[in-house]
Formats: sequence, C-alpha cells, structure tokens
Amino acid sequence: LFEVKWDVEAAEKGGYEHFMIKEIHEQPAAIKDTLRGRIINDSQIVLDNINITKEDLEKIEKIFIVACGTAYHAGVVGKYVIESFARIPVEVDVASEFRYRNPIVNERILTIVISQSGETADTIAALKEAKRKGSRVIAITNVVGSSVSREADEVLYTWAGPEIAVASTKAYTTQLIALYLIALDFALKKGTMSSTKVVEIISELKKLPDKVQYLLDNKEVIQKFASEHYNVKDVFYIGRGLDYAVAMEGSLKLKEISYIHSEAYPAGELKHGTLALVEEGTLIIALATQDDLFEKMLSNIKEVKARGGYVVAFAKQGNLQLEGVVDKVIYIPDTLKELTPVLTVVPLQLLAYYMAVEKGCDVDKPRNLAKSVTVE
Amino acid sequence: LFEVKWDVEAAEKGGYEHFMIKEIHEQPAAIKDTLRGRIINDSQIVLDNINITKEDLEKIEKIFIVACGTAYHAGVVGKYVIESFARIPVEVDVASEFRYRNPIVNERILTIVISQSGETADTIAALKEAKRKGSRVIAITNVVGSSVSREADEVLYTWAGPEIAVASTKAYTTQLIALYLIALDFALKKGTMSSTKVVEIISELKKLPDKVQYLLDNKEVIQKFASEHYNVKDVFYIGRGLDYAVAMEGSLKLKEISYIHSEAYPAGELKHGTLALVEEGTLIIALATQDDLFEKMLSNIKEVKARGGYVVAFAKQGNLQLEGVVDKVIYIPDTLKELTPVLTVVPLQLLAYYMAVEKGCDVDKPRNLAKSVTVE
Repeated sequence: LFEVKWDVEAAEKGGYEHFMIKEIHEQPAAIKDTLRGRIINDSQIVLDNINITKEDLEKIEKIFIVACGTAYHAGVVGKYVIESFARIPVEVDVASEFRYRNPIVNERILTIVISQSGETADTIAALKEAKRKGSRVIAITNVVGSSVSREADEVLYTWAGPEIAVASTKAYTTQLIALYLIALDFALKKGTMSSTKVVEIISELKKLPDKVQYLLDNKEVIQKFASEHYNVKDVFYIGRGLDYAVAMEGSLKLKEISYIHSEAYPAGELKHGTLALVEEGTLIIALATQDDLFEKMLSNIKEVKARGGYVVAFAKQGNLQLEGVVDKVIYIPDTLKELTPVLTVVPLQLLAYYMAVEKGCDVDKPRNLAKSVTVE
Repeated sequence: LFEVKWDVEAAEKGGYEHFMIKEIHEQPAAIKDTLRGRIINDSQIVLDNINITKEDLEKIEKIFIVACGTAYHAGVVGKYVIESFARIPVEVDVASEFRYRNPIVNERILTIVISQSGETADTIAALKEAKRKGSRVIAITNVVGSSVSREADEVLYTWAGPEIAVASTKAYTTQLIALYLIALDFALKKGTMSSTKVVEIISELKKLPDKVQYLLDNKEVIQKFASEHYNVKDVFYIGRGLDYAVAMEGSLKLKEISYIHSEAYPAGELKHGTLALVEEGTLIIALATQDDLFEKMLSNIKEVKARGGYVVAFAKQGNLQLEGVVDKVIYIPDTLKELTPVLTVVPLQLLAYYMAVEKGCDVDKPRNLAKSVTVE
C-alpha cells in the first residue's frame, strides 16, 4: 500500500517545469488553431462573424489599434502589416494614454482593441470611449465571453487556450496571426494586393507552426547562452522596422520575469543618445531579419561592436554575413519579411525564460505583476 | 610684467563650467527670441514666411512630424498640442524608421521635420521622401542655411543661438515654442479654438521665460539631490499625457551624459511589465503636473512606493497632495497644462547635468556621441 500525492498544478504543467515554458511550446498548436477555418481555398479569408464590407472599408480613414503591454506590442506589428497590406493608415496607442487624451475618433475610424484576458481595465475603457465617439470596434481576445468580447461590435478570437503564466507568449503570437488575417482580409476587399501575393502569404502563414517547432527543437542553444550570461545588469534590444517591434516584446519579456533592466531601441536612434550607455561587454540583442534593412542594421551592429558591446544577432538562415562580425548569431527559418515577428519572438521568449530560471526567479509569477490588469 | 593666458573655450562659456549648463541658462532668452515678432496684438500669430492658408489646412488630412532624438521628443509634445488646438491628426515618427517603412504619404499630408542642426542625415532623407510623395514640408531648425532649411518648402527658425553641448537643451525648449506657434496658427485658421482661449495661451506663452528663470534660480535643490543620488544604476521616469512626453526627454538627457540606464514609461503601462524592476530604493522620477491626470498618477505613484521605490515627484506649485506621499517633491510654476513641458524639462535637464558632473563625466562631449548625426 502506498499513497499517491497529486499535485494539480504540476499535472496541468504537463511535465514542464513552468507554465511559461509549457505555453511557449504550445505555440505551434495555438497558431494552427487560430488559423483553422479562417482560410478558404488557400486564397480567401473568413473572419468568423466579422462582416466588414468593401464599402465599409472605403469609408474608413484610419484604424486605431489600442492595447496594453504585450498586446500593444502585437499592435505595433499590426500597424506595420495593415498599412503594408491594405494601405489604411494605422495609429497604435497604449490604452491608458488613448482614453485620457481626447483622441480624434469618429465614425470614419475603425478601432481594434487587443487583450488576451479581455478584462484589461484600460483597454475596456478605451473601447467604450472609441464607441462613444462613433467608432466601430473589433476586439481581438483569447477569452470567449470576456468584457471586451461583449462590449466590442465584433470579435476575432485567438485560440491560444488558457494562458496561466503572467508573461504572455502564445497570446502574443496568436494575436499576430489574428492581425495578419485582418490585414489580408482588408487587402483583399480593398484590392490593394494581388491575389498571387495573397496566396503566397497564406501559404507562408501555414508553414509558421512547423518553423516555430523547429526553433523550439533548437532551444538548447538559447539555454546554454542564458546559463553563461544571466548575470548581466543591462540589455539593449535593437532593430529596425518589424524587428524593432519584436525587440520591444523581447525586452519586455526579459524585464518582467528576470528583473534585468532591458530596453528596446530603434537601431537608427542609438546614435541620438543610447549609444552612450554601451561599454565593454554590454549585452546587445540585435535583430537583423529584415532583408531590405540589413545593410543599415549591419552598420548599427558595427557601431556597438566598436564600443565593445557583446552582440547576439538574429538573422535569417542562409544569411552568413554576421559570422565573425558579432559574438553569436541565432538563425531564424526563412519566411516573408512581414511574418518574421512570429519566428523571431520565440528565441527571445526562450532567452527571457532561461535567464529568469538561471537567476532563480519565480518565472510564472513575477514580483509586483498580475496576469490581467483589471484595475487602472 | 605678467602674461595673460586666454582660453578661448572658457571665454565662450561665459563663466560657466560647461556649455551645457550655460545653454540651460540661456533658455529664458532663447524662448523670448523664438517668440519675438511672431505674436501680433497678443492675439495673432505670424510664422515668418510660412503662408499656409485656411484653404490649404482644410485639404490636409494628417500631419507627420519626423525627427530624431531630442527633436523627436519635441515632436511628441507637438502631436499632443496640434491635435488638441487644431484637431488635425498627427503622427510622430523617428526619421530612421519613417524613411524606410513606405509610409502612407501624399499631397494631403503636411510634414513637419525638426532638426536643431538641420543636418541630421535621417531627417534630411525623410524630408526628401515626404516631398517625393507629394507632401508639403515645413522645417523647424536652429541653423539658417542648413540642408533641412534649404530642402523644406517653408522654415520656422528657432532662435536658440549656437548650441555646443552634445546634449540638447535650449534647442528642445525653443522647438516646443515653435510647435506651440504652429498649433495656434493652425487653430486660428481652422477656427477650432475661441479667440479668448488663444489670447490666454499667448499670454501664458509670454510668461514662460520668467518662469524658466525662476526654476534656474532654484537650481540648488536639484544640485543637492544629484550630489546625494548620483550613484544610482537605474532610473525610471514615469508620466501620463504630456508628462510622459517630457519623461522621455528627461530620461534621454540623463542617459546620454551620465551613462545611467534610465527609461521613460507611460505610467499606466507600469503594471504591464516594468513594475517588476522596482525594488527597495529604485529611483523613480514621477511627473504629475497634469491636473486632469493627477489622480491616476497619484495611484501609480502609490504603486511604486508600495514596492519600495524612492520617488521624486514633479508637481505644480500649490498642489500639496504629494507631500508625505513621496520622498521629494519638485515644484513647477503654475501654467496651462499644454505649456508645462517647457517648465518641467528644466529641472530634468539640471538633474541630468548635476548627476553627470558628480559622476565626473565629460558633460559636453559624452562618449560615443556626436553633436549632429550627419551619417546614417
């Protein structure tokens, strides 16, 4: 006779040490689930019950994307992608700023709010403010029946499944997928993109789960790096364009769970101040996955190297130009430039996770933070 | 018989130890010079030879403000003020991002570029890109005959006089003045503001030099604080609305000359990550000069105090609600909320200066940085 002790929490972690690393590994499935049923014949998009027409879109002068924290960072990618695909101007704003600054919103504005929990207080207030001013509001959320889903005119759910760790991972990548689908739908309706291009993007979207899996299968590289560098005091994440958007999210991940003071900077702004902080050994995470911006990034990377920075660069597989130039290169599977954020963020999540584990931090419940910020 | 050794540089410093502190002290005069001749009968604005008409403005759907570094931070204030006064949507962008991201620009877009030297490479390139796409371009610059002044369609000069220190101070405050004048001019032409309100703002603008002088006359408080706290490793600047815009500039000043890792955050975003970095003794500079946002700021201030943060708050004279709540309060003379940035930034400049002096840094020529970034 022996007693079996059940630990419910451990059981739910499915063999993983923390919810965060479990959720990082759930991303291939979460991305698949968020794409499922929304792509028809590899060439058309169906956004559930969102029925915004070509005529509706023609009346829309501008889109506001409003969110907090990680969801805001997804919004920064969303701005880039919607402007690029559908050529509609997009402004991204932090919900706590948007709601109090008397933003110029009217019935010709479409508002997209993003909230994993759907209960973020500032986001709910921003949503109501936008509606009060006449804007149509689409919500991207992970929780069916949440406040945001009830208040919005239309909802596009991410199907990430429950996210328990305070630091958001699979919610972010599925929010990106939702934004790609919206951008493609709008582009198709507005006729701003050739059907060949749409088919190409859809095809590449469907390959993302396998590519994320490949990055997860190679996590030991990141784990080893973290075990050697977890003692750093400051980290700077730099990038241009979409790489800068991902840099913000990578920096936030590290900050919130490992308590390392990290900061993201558009690489071109370095020379306007932050470069002064770079000295011998300063850790720089340089994202260089955008082909058209690569030469400019290379020059920024050389600047920080010249000041003694220890540079870990992220580049696309096949681009060997950073070997010998930086201290370490992490390779990302090749994909369309617009889709790189979904891949680049994965090793950045792993980096934050392993740094925090090495430091002995309470990864799933970092100090001072709550999972959903339901108060202002 | 004795030999007099002339030190030309010291002579130019006019008795000050560094150019930066000299230039900080020149701000009352620089603001007066930038206002001079541009206000008629205390109720009308004349923007030199910029003749944008009511009809021109009615065709403008949106304004882009494009700049780098400190000038970008002035642009963030400009967005707030132009949207508030003239109700024209404004997007502020970093020049190195704007020029490469295929921004949605056409002949219905007005672009305002800001550059102290007028020779910032990325800003010049952004200006040309905007013009190529059909946008009218107004430049705000401090240097007559500079590249930016020659390339732009129209120019509004700041009359700050030569700025020698790498860290910009009087250029920033005069850029703010130029933006206020533009916002007022547009508001008058568009009829978005009552003439009573315009007269009130003009009257308050004219009082700014004396109020800046008052802050300079009380610099010892800041100097003393710096002598006690210059050894900190990390500083967080928080604020909401215009206070957040000024927080960005205050943080950049500290970073570029004292090499302390500082970061600015919209106060409402703290709970979405950065709060995890606040522990016993962490220095927080909390700007709380916006009456309508004061209660929200107070609640953010209490959050960081509860985590052990050492909080220096900036409040308006007469508002005693932070006494006993925070560790130190710096008072700013009362003014209209839109004009607070011109005052709040002054003690922040002084704080950066004295911290750097205490640390023995080369204040006027910080490591790794150049005065004007004429390469990309």
